[in-house]
Amino acid sequence: MAIVLFSDFGSNDLYVGQVEAVLDRYAPGVRVIHLLHDAPPFRIEASAHLLAALSQKIPKGHVFMGVVDPGVGSDRAAVVMRADGRWFVGPDNGLFSVIAARATARQFWQIASATARLAPSFHGRDLFAPIAAAVATDDFPNSNVKPVAGLQVNLGADDLAQIVYIDHYGNAFTGVRAVNVAPAASIRIAGRTVPHARVFSAVAPGAAIWYENSIGLVELAVNQGSAAQAFGLAVGDAVSFV
Amino acid sequence: MAIVLFSDFGSNDLYVGQVEAVLDRYAPGVRVIHLLHDAPPFRIEASAHLLAALSQKIPKGHVFMGVVDPGVGSDRAAVVMRADGRWFVGPDNGLFSVIAARATARQFWQIASATARLAPSFHGRDLFAPIAAAVATDDFPNSNVKPVAGLQVNLGADDLAQIVYIDHYGNAFTGVRAVNVAPAASIRIAGRTVPHARVFSAVAPGAAIWYENSIGLVELAVNQGSAAQAFGLAVGDAVSFV
Amino acid sequence: MAIVLFSDFGSNDLYVGQVEAVLDRYAPGVRVIHLLHDAPPFRIEASAHLLAALSQKIPKGHVFMGVVDPGVGSDRAAVVMRADGRWFVGPDNGLFSVIAARATARQFWQIASATARLAPSFHGRDLFAPIAAAVATDDFPNSNVKPVAGLQVNLGADDLAQIVYIDHYGNAFTGVRAVNVAPAASIRIAGRTVPHARVFSAVAPGAAIWYENSIGLVELAVNQGSAAQAFGLAVGDAVSFV
Repeated sequence: MAIVLFSDFGSNDLYVGQVEAVLDRYAPGVRVIHLLHDAPPFRIEASAHLLAALSQKIPKGHVFMGVVDPGVGSDRAAVVMRADGRWFVGPDNGLFSVIAARATARQFWQIASATARLAPSFHGRDLFAPIAAAVATDDFPNSNVKPVAGLQVNLGADDLAQIVYIDHYGNAFTGVRAVNVAPAASIRIAGRTVPHARVFSAVAPGAAIWYENSIGLVELAVNQGSAAQAFGLAVGDAVSFV
Repeated sequence: MAIVLFSDFGSNDLYVGQVEAVLDRYAPGVRVIHLLHDAPPFRIEASAHLLAALSQKIPKGHVFMGVVDPGVGSDRAAVVMRADGRWFVGPDNGLFSVIAARATARQFWQIASATARLAPSFHGRDLFAPIAAAVATDDFPNSNVKPVAGLQVNLGADDLAQIVYIDHYGNAFTGVRAVNVAPAASIRIAGRTVPHARVFSAVAPGAAIWYENSIGLVELAVNQGSAAQAFGLAVGDAVSFV
Repeated sequence: MAIVLFSDFGSNDLYVGQVEAVLDRYAPGVRVIHLLHDAPPFRIEASAHLLAALSQKIPKGHVFMGVVDPGVGSDRAAVVMRADGRWFVGPDNGLFSVIAARATARQFWQIASATARLAPSFHGRDLFAPIAAAVATDDFPNSNVKPVAGLQVNLGADDLAQIVYIDHYGNAFTGVRAVNVAPAASIRIAGRTVPHARVFSAVAPGAAIWYENSIGLVELAVNQGSAAQAFGLAVGDAVSFV
């Protein structure tokens, strides 16, 4: 069992290492996998759809600690969720709710608010990492949590027809699962219409396509170029299909 | 015992992996934690204050390898320090001296200059990593070091009234410990005066505050925005309190 | 034996963690070292020379997974190479061919095309990582590979007189091994002539030099400044020696 981190802490900042030091303390031999630390900052909905697709590609049994948390310091609850064999630890602000809505089996625990009210604090390090380590070392459930019926914030199971992530090549992920789109359909984005292709190499360098990417989402790409630059895209931009 | 890295090598560059390969060779089972690799390049004083605050948040017993080293290739000495239960390996250029000045218990060893005079070399990989691995595997002190009374470069124990770090959200850390500032005080920075608040969510989105951050430093932030951008800040900018 | 990753996946993107989760599954206890994930995107020749120099600085016995692969989805073959005690797993597109041409002892296996034709897929995660894990756990050769006489794409053993990498300090690596250049020679780059020095600190801050860097390549640098900025350099720019 590994601990898999998903956050908007920033890969290059000083936050992730502090989290890993806490995980090392409470879950000494456990591998820590840095899945993403540049999730769209503060964008809970985009991150929820991205994490829902990404987590499907990670073997079951692992513990995800997911933190995209503009409301840190406010009264939002903190939660542990078990969904279809994967564990999730983080804020109850919608981030895990797309996964919850799509899961067959799920359980929830709320993290005690006494534990949650630390200041000055960094919840990833001080609140969520010790709980994630407890789950990863089978010290769970423990006295810091109580079972609850569900999440407080729910975004639903539907796809999100927006750009949810842009990678360093300039490829733009949408929150739409490709299985829900006919291959004959074209995507409408930023006033333009882009056809489907199965792989980059099906089109000439510089040409734009949408395709089913490696985590099952509709992705807009330019072969050997940047779709984000060519189309002027940002996370949150709306897409549709024609 | 883990090895904790703090440097200006750049998280995205090809230097860190070379260091980790050496650590793997000489300290095979030991976890390596990447605390920060984007310390302000060449800024020893800012980095010294940042590392002093950060290291307090890491459990005792670990070995820090810290490298911010504009003088590599010059005659600056190389040092191992033990301070209040934490180990530090790196250049004797002031980087560890704020920690030394504030510590209750401390010991120092100089790394033999024969070992230090390698060329062409990458001191992080060729000089400091083998020593850090030796400390982490209890092969220390060894024949490559000799005890010395103290550091050659000392910056003192006082706070640094400057911006020492800017994270990817645009939050600006100062070198001032919050415990030394009255909560009623406001911070003066870039010609403006900013009040204190305990948490981001105490003010409206877009408003600026200073607060005690999660490593105990005074930090300037804009709720859900970038203080660095709003105020045009850079590492080294002076601050004061009124 | 560690698994050492070299790619253009982007350090900050969501690709590397997915690879590490697969490595963790098939090679549970094995350390994963992130050598470089910001290799020049799609630049096979520059990356081949960079990897040739870098890999020499990593102890023998490790398994390199190297992926710089603009032709993913096309018919390029996939290969495992053993060269002078180091293993390499990745596309047969030239990336490993500089190493192959310079090696004394080498062996090659082609990865079965049935395994290679996965869609939608991420070859780093779905094709190369399971093979790299198999090599690292001594489950190799296995039924997914067959021995072959050599690589399909060969770039030769000669140095590459171009910029192959620029680090975050702005230092520019060439594909020329310093051992092949007389120390008295100067480098010609971007219309200017720059002399040799042994270390940065031999010249004043702001002055440009070339020197043998820590992986044995000729590197252009400005002491405490950015050569890339000062000279307007990009990967692929030609250099010569006078």
